Amino acid sequence: MPGQKTRQWILSNPPQANPVFTGPNATFSLRDSTLPSPGPDQLLVKILFLSNDPAQRGWIQKGIDPERLYVPPVQQGEIMRSFAIAEVLESKANTVNQGQLVMGTFGWTEYAVVDAKEARPIQADPSSGIRATHFIGALGVTGLTAYNGLIDVARTTAADTVVVSGAAGATGSMAVQLAKNVLGCKKVIGIAGGAKKCAFVESLGADVCVDYKSPSFVADLKKATEGFVQVYFDNVGGDILDLMLTRMARHGRVAACGAVATYNSLGEGGVKNWFEIIANRIEIKGFIILDAIESGKAEQWMGELVKAVKEGKIRVGPETETVVGTRFEDVPTTWGMLFEGGNTGKLVTEIKA
Amino acid sequence: MPGQKTRQWILSNPPQANPVFTGPNATFSLRDSTLPSPGPDQLLVKILFLSNDPAQRGWIQKGIDPERLYVPPVQQGEIMRSFAIAEVLESKANTVNQGQLVMGTFGWTEYAVVDAKEARPIQADPSSGIRATHFIGALGVTGLTAYNGLIDVARTTAADTVVVSGAAGATGSMAVQLAKNVLGCKKVIGIAGGAKKCAFVESLGADVCVDYKSPSFVADLKKATEGFVQVYFDNVGGDILDLMLTRMARHGRVAACGAVATYNSLGEGGVKNWFEIIANRIEIKGFIILDAIESGKAEQWMGELVKAVKEGKIRVGPETETVVGTRFEDVPTTWGMLFEGGNTGKLVTEIKA
Repeated sequence: MPGQKTRQWILSNPPQANPVFTGPNATFSLRDSTLPSPGPDQLLVKILFLSNDPAQRGWIQKGIDPERLYVPPVQQGEIMRSFAIAEVLESKANTVNQGQLVMGTFGWTEYAVVDAKEARPIQADPSSGIRATHFIGALGVTGLTAYNGLIDVARTTAADTVVVSGAAGATGSMAVQLAKNVLGCKKVIGIAGGAKKCAFVESLGADVCVDYKSPSFVADLKKATEGFVQVYFDNVGGDILDLMLTRMARHGRVAACGAVATYNSLGEGGVKNWFEIIANRIEIKGFIILDAIESGKAEQWMGELVKAVKEGKIRVGPETETVVGTRFEDVPTTWGMLFEGGNTGKLVTEIKA
Repeated sequence: MPGQKTRQWILSNPPQANPVFTGPNATFSLRDSTLPSPGPDQLLVKILFLSNDPAQRGWIQKGIDPERLYVPPVQQGEIMRSFAIAEVLESKANTVNQGQLVMGTFGWTEYAVVDAKEARPIQADPSSGIRATHFIGALGVTGLTAYNGLIDVARTTAADTVVVSGAAGATGSMAVQLAKNVLGCKKVIGIAGGAKKCAFVESLGADVCVDYKSPSFVADLKKATEGFVQVYFDNVGGDILDLMLTRMARHGRVAACGAVATYNSLGEGGVKNWFEIIANRIEIKGFIILDAIESGKAEQWMGELVKAVKEGKIRVGPETETVVGTRFEDVPTTWGMLFEGGNTGKLVTEIKA
């Protein structure tokens, strides 16, 4: 059988600031390729959905020191890396069948030949409202990241008041639900951009959501955090993090998950309220979900997330993901929506034929 | 018996940036006062030595929010707060005798009337080289702070490579000795200002001390920290902290002890390399020695410090403290030396008659 033809998006110009989607300096470029036939224990898969994650921005940063990143950066000329859900078209492995859905780090490609051990079979469960896309969202690295930061890193309990930034986003919306509906935290405060997103966050269970685009944001956040907070789940970094350092209770814990506010900037600003960390004995911990996956901890957490969904404590309906039907040639621009703050919940690309 | 007359330094103008020692806007002003006679369980003491600590700068910051500081700020019109060693001139308490040496938070005053329970008796031991001043230094809050940060907060072990900033200072010089001579750490790297201080730090046991005033500082620090470091004991904050975030090993720990580089500035700069905390899962913990004193942990640590001194593992000789003979009217300017980086080891004011 001749090799499968496919289009692939490759990293052509690693960006220093904002990624560029058109013109001669475009960050990515499209190429045609022919795949080899799958060998023993390999699969030929067709990509159905792509996961869009702020972390991908870090993987392509120009000049990043490979020693300092948690995964090897994507090299110039390589296929853009991405989590994905695919259908198995052809299997040379005993453990996986043709027609099965699998997830893995397949990248921005229409088709791929992958080792079966790099493809995790997934099972949608429509009666519980669990769709395939949830395995790259609420029940995948996104939900696991929320669990990791909130429960493992920040050791959050029902007695705590919790603030979640990026609360309408993929990880944030899961963190809010976990805090309020699973842990039963005393008070859960979301931070999101715009009235619509804030209403969404409150609909998930947050006691209040503060709009960072409002001119009264600083006063609103101070009011919402009166008495100070024990836990801050930080998805954004930058100025909001700096402000939150002044709102942490003594011995408060910050789960440092992301810094999307700074990914496309050139290191302007910076955290000025560092002394708060000392004076109020604040603990900051950075974390990356890959550690929990590698150590096996994530398996148990995944089970707890599925249970919470089945018990109705976590909503994974259409409102916690934004699935954008996308022609393959528009894959990069759909990803770019992440940085415009347009989506609520997980931003998923559905590849249209 | 008539009340003891005394001079006292009071906080007259809380500073926003650099403290001012002369003129109408001077930070402190001198006043004459007459003390009451000591009541039951009280002492009349004569101050012999004052402890000079960067933390005192925070206690007098203009406009600081009392809710956010770990101790009540010093109020305008109050005596400047300071740890001190004093001699008991008169005792109305059964537990303390006249002539005994005591330490406590007596402040910038020549004489004070204090509750006996606020005065901790101390005992010099010349045969072990332990002098009274060591109880506000190597064997007091300074040494305990080094112990707290290095061993309790950062959980340092012999397998770790450790960087200590402000390494020629009071806390830093103790942290270097604890790391190298008590814990036996794999490699101990000091950061200090100038060749003389660096030589001092290396004489304490550091494998190398890097001079932050050298034009090749960044390259020198990178070289010294090749392979990255597990523990950073941070006394300075600011740019050096920012650089150190790029030199931490994965899962490295930062004990956030002080930020003297920023105390007299108006929040310029700021920490830009926050993303390193996430990508390399760095843990940052602020701490204040008062917690360990209140919880009783510090008692045991003090015993270990005294033992290490007696075993010759920690040097507390004259080279680890700078005792400055000072007329009472010059107490503020001696304290101001802290921010000029002039002293090595603990800066102690000895009050001259």
